[in-house]
Amino acid sequence: MKEFLLIDRIVAALGEAAAGACVRIGPGDDAAVTATPPGMELVSSIDALVADVHFPAAAGPSLIGYRAIMVSASDLAAMGAAGGFILVALNLPEGDADWVAELARGMAEAADQLGLAVVGGNIAAGPLAMTVSVHGFAPTGQALTRAGARVGDDVFVTGHLGGAAAAVARGDLAGCQSSGDLDVLSHRYFRPRARLSEGVRLLGLASSAIDLSDGLLQDLSHIGERSGVGFDLEAPAIPVATGATLTQALSGGDDYELCFTMATAPPPLDVALHRVGRVVAKPGIRLDGKAADPSGYQHFAL
Amino acid sequence: MKEFLLIDRIVAALGEAAAGACVRIGPGDDAAVTATPPGMELVSSIDALVADVHFPAAAGPSLIGYRAIMVSASDLAAMGAAGGFILVALNLPEGDADWVAELARGMAEAADQLGLAVVGGNIAAGPLAMTVSVHGFAPTGQALTRAGARVGDDVFVTGHLGGAAAAVARGDLAGCQSSGDLDVLSHRYFRPRARLSEGVRLLGLASSAIDLSDGLLQDLSHIGERSGVGFDLEAPAIPVATGATLTQALSGGDDYELCFTMATAPPPLDVALHRVGRVVAKPGIRLDGKAADPSGYQHFAL
Repeated sequence: MKEFLLIDRIVAALGEAAAGACVRIGPGDDAAVTATPPGMELVSSIDALVADVHFPAAAGPSLIGYRAIMVSASDLAAMGAAGGFILVALNLPEGDADWVAELARGMAEAADQLGLAVVGGNIAAGPLAMTVSVHGFAPTGQALTRAGARVGDDVFVTGHLGGAAAAVARGDLAGCQSSGDLDVLSHRYFRPRARLSEGVRLLGLASSAIDLSDGLLQDLSHIGERSGVGFDLEAPAIPVATGATLTQALSGGDDYELCFTMATAPPPLDVALHRVGRVVAKPGIRLDGKAADPSGYQHFAL
Repeated sequence: MKEFLLIDRIVAALGEAAAGACVRIGPGDDAAVTATPPGMELVSSIDALVADVHFPAAAGPSLIGYRAIMVSASDLAAMGAAGGFILVALNLPEGDADWVAELARGMAEAADQLGLAVVGGNIAAGPLAMTVSVHGFAPTGQALTRAGARVGDDVFVTGHLGGAAAAVARGDLAGCQSSGDLDVLSHRYFRPRARLSEGVRLLGLASSAIDLSDGLLQDLSHIGERSGVGFDLEAPAIPVATGATLTQALSGGDDYELCFTMATAPPPLDVALHRVGRVVAKPGIRLDGKAADPSGYQHFAL
């Protein structure tokens, strides 16, 4: 399978996912060209997913591709950005065209659901890994950051937490080949939903936001550092996913829900919303009054 | 070495390279925020560089980092884009902070030279590889593409070709640790210069353009396919780099010079410019009248 034929298979699998309102030139030239809407700024992030580090390589490629897009786009949600585009770099040990086409189909499904266009990519020989560069639009000067939490704000999270960590702990994710193989826990791992529309609705309302990739305590500690505040959390208020433990909900990672702070009552969202605590002046995080260790998932932690 | 300390080292090594006129929010939040200048569109590309596939892992990290940025930004030059930003995803087998800081210094040097800001990144555990997402600005509707070559246009290339391929063929690149170790050939490999300012000067003048990453014949064949034309090249006109062969200049790859077509005399550029042939109606590429094989570097070619 030659590289260019492989690219043809990918572009075919992407179909309409390569198009979008912002796209002027899509896949096929040296670079893609997009237009940023007037009054908007571009919000950009990059994420890498390495085989058997960030996903089980033996799992179904459509599941791997879908999750890769959702995981990466979650950073846009945390900034209140939406409506942009994606570039994907794929490192492959060999050119298995059917595997790659299934991967691209999973990516296209996720991109379609999020309203993001896949405008370009790269294929390279190498150990299996993919890197996803995501780009969305936010009104000029209004993107949500980690830096605005104020003492007295309430802390909220979307959805339920710990389900993906419980699925990882169960140890059977590599056996999942398609959506039909998923139960409630493996679904939480393979089919997270980046909260782009929810993030947009928080613009001008939330004082700070972050997405939950490394666990609530660790991610919240980033808001604490950047905002110069601390947090008092209430354990009974943490929305623990069915089948997960409180520890998994606090420190498990891979949830890709939003955590945000707000001084007022939050707007109605299409996803469950829980108030889990409040912003305080004292640095650090307390859970029911006791100091909580914010360490979550870290690469290279010794 | 914890991930966050490693990121601190990288951000420190980047220094001013993280800033730029378009940057609203740089490294440190869920995503970076940039502003696209009025009247401009965004030009975006992604490239992956895998250890011992796309660069010798034993070479000096500042050389590897410098080259990674130049190689990736070359796609912007081919579109006539400049003045944007970069995201870098780094997959590391271990967290060697000194190695990573040197890599970042090499990246910062290249980004500074090109006027691109390094606004964000990602560090992941995995086999050594880096993926660079590059973004520049081009006047709305004017980006150069591969699709506009017309019969009768002349074909030009910048610089001299084949030097990087000759360096690869010599087989001693892994021994290069810093700029001081480079001779004329290894300099061509490790210190290519993405032709951003040259690409900008070709806007509105060149009918098509591409950067030379896979070899002149293969890259030119992409212009041929997208433009529906062919090429008659003249072997004596090919600017062969000192120490390289004509074959390396035609098919070697890794030059990162520009190739473009133009109906008129080209504007003065700060780099040597050579007319190597002309655009003809007959598909394919002829060299001194004989059919030339456009196959250059291809991943997964069997």
